[in-house]
Amino acid sequence: MNADKIPDIIIGRLPVYLRALQRLADKGVLTTSSQELGEMIGISAAQIRKDISQFGEFGKQGTGYSIPFLVERLRDILKVDRIWDAVIIGMGDMGHALARYNGFVNRGFRVVMVFDNDPNKIGQKVGEFEIFSTAVMIEKLKQQKIKIAVLTAPASSAQEIADQLVKAGIKAILNYAPISINVPDEVHVQYIDPVTHLQRMTYYL
Amino acid sequence: MNADKIPDIIIGRLPVYLRALQRLADKGVLTTSSQELGEMIGISAAQIRKDISQFGEFGKQGTGYSIPFLVERLRDILKVDRIWDAVIIGMGDMGHALARYNGFVNRGFRVVMVFDNDPNKIGQKVGEFEIFSTAVMIEKLKQQKIKIAVLTAPASSAQEIADQLVKAGIKAILNYAPISINVPDEVHVQYIDPVTHLQRMTYYL
Repeated sequence: MNADKIPDIIIGRLPVYLRALQRLADKGVLTTSSQELGEMIGISAAQIRKDISQFGEFGKQGTGYSIPFLVERLRDILKVDRIWDAVIIGMGDMGHALARYNGFVNRGFRVVMVFDNDPNKIGQKVGEFEIFSTAVMIEKLKQQKIKIAVLTAPASSAQEIADQLVKAGIKAILNYAPISINVPDEVHVQYIDPVTHLQRMTYYL
Repeated sequence: MNADKIPDIIIGRLPVYLRALQRLADKGVLTTSSQELGEMIGISAAQIRKDISQFGEFGKQGTGYSIPFLVERLRDILKVDRIWDAVIIGMGDMGHALARYNGFVNRGFRVVMVFDNDPNKIGQKVGEFEIFSTAVMIEKLKQQKIKIAVLTAPASSAQEIADQLVKAGIKAILNYAPISINVPDEVHVQYIDPVTHLQRMTYYL
């Protein structure tokens, strides 16, 4: 199957495979098996073999997967064999934490600008970043051709900011606001809401 | 179908439905349709109808769903018709942001204690919380019969802390560490890793 046709549900698992494989690579491990990988990440070995076979033949029965080769292929498929510039909108506690998070850059992303609409915050520093006004956001994002935004605004202003991000040419939004946002089909949104994750677990308690 | 047998993939969508319905309820809206809900959250009306029909008959063709009734039923199914005590382990930037997050309590959760293993942080205040040492974590969690932990430790210590949480009787872990953790089957884990979400979107860019 062509890499362009990989089902979305499989695409969702590839970053998890990549993270586990990179962790093994960091330890100097050169080969792994679907069994070992499955135990690391809690996905069945059969599922992993099926997912990985979607984009070519890797490894042989009994010899396992070459980690450097599989890492390279996954980074290529997910397009994180490059560094993507990203911006953060909303410099509350969560925005601050993300602006200072050092786990982006070795996995394909670099925060390049941060924004807020609070006059008291604009011009202040967060780590290496000066907080810019959302009033100049569209202009700055267009200038630098930014495609990725992390949205940590409150629920009350999330949709309005999302509309501006779309106008600015943003194509992927990681939304921390506890609200679903409406964007055109060509703009991708992923949600991070700790409460939905917690509620998903309490069902089983 | 009995609520105990709802497939996990549906359970994963219920908190999203609940969030959207509570948002409508907050605006004073009393009824909604699968179409309206679908437009809010980007899930097809047919899927929503099918999911909701898993746990009983709600609404009628043409009249829509009663929001207060559906909210009550979802809160009951997800067991967030009560307040769950939760703890946070790891008082870095992310732990701080979560300790001060005010979006937990009206959705079923209350942070009651926070922990870190850094001697320089222990005893300091984060909002209303004093940071406790992880050395007393097992004892305190057992004493207060805590079942839910939010883990924001670095990848290097996440598994070790997860092992301690399991010993302490924790049954649900929301893991912000960028690593898969191994726990017994009866312990539930959900992952929040912004990079896996970002990588899932770059595939499409």
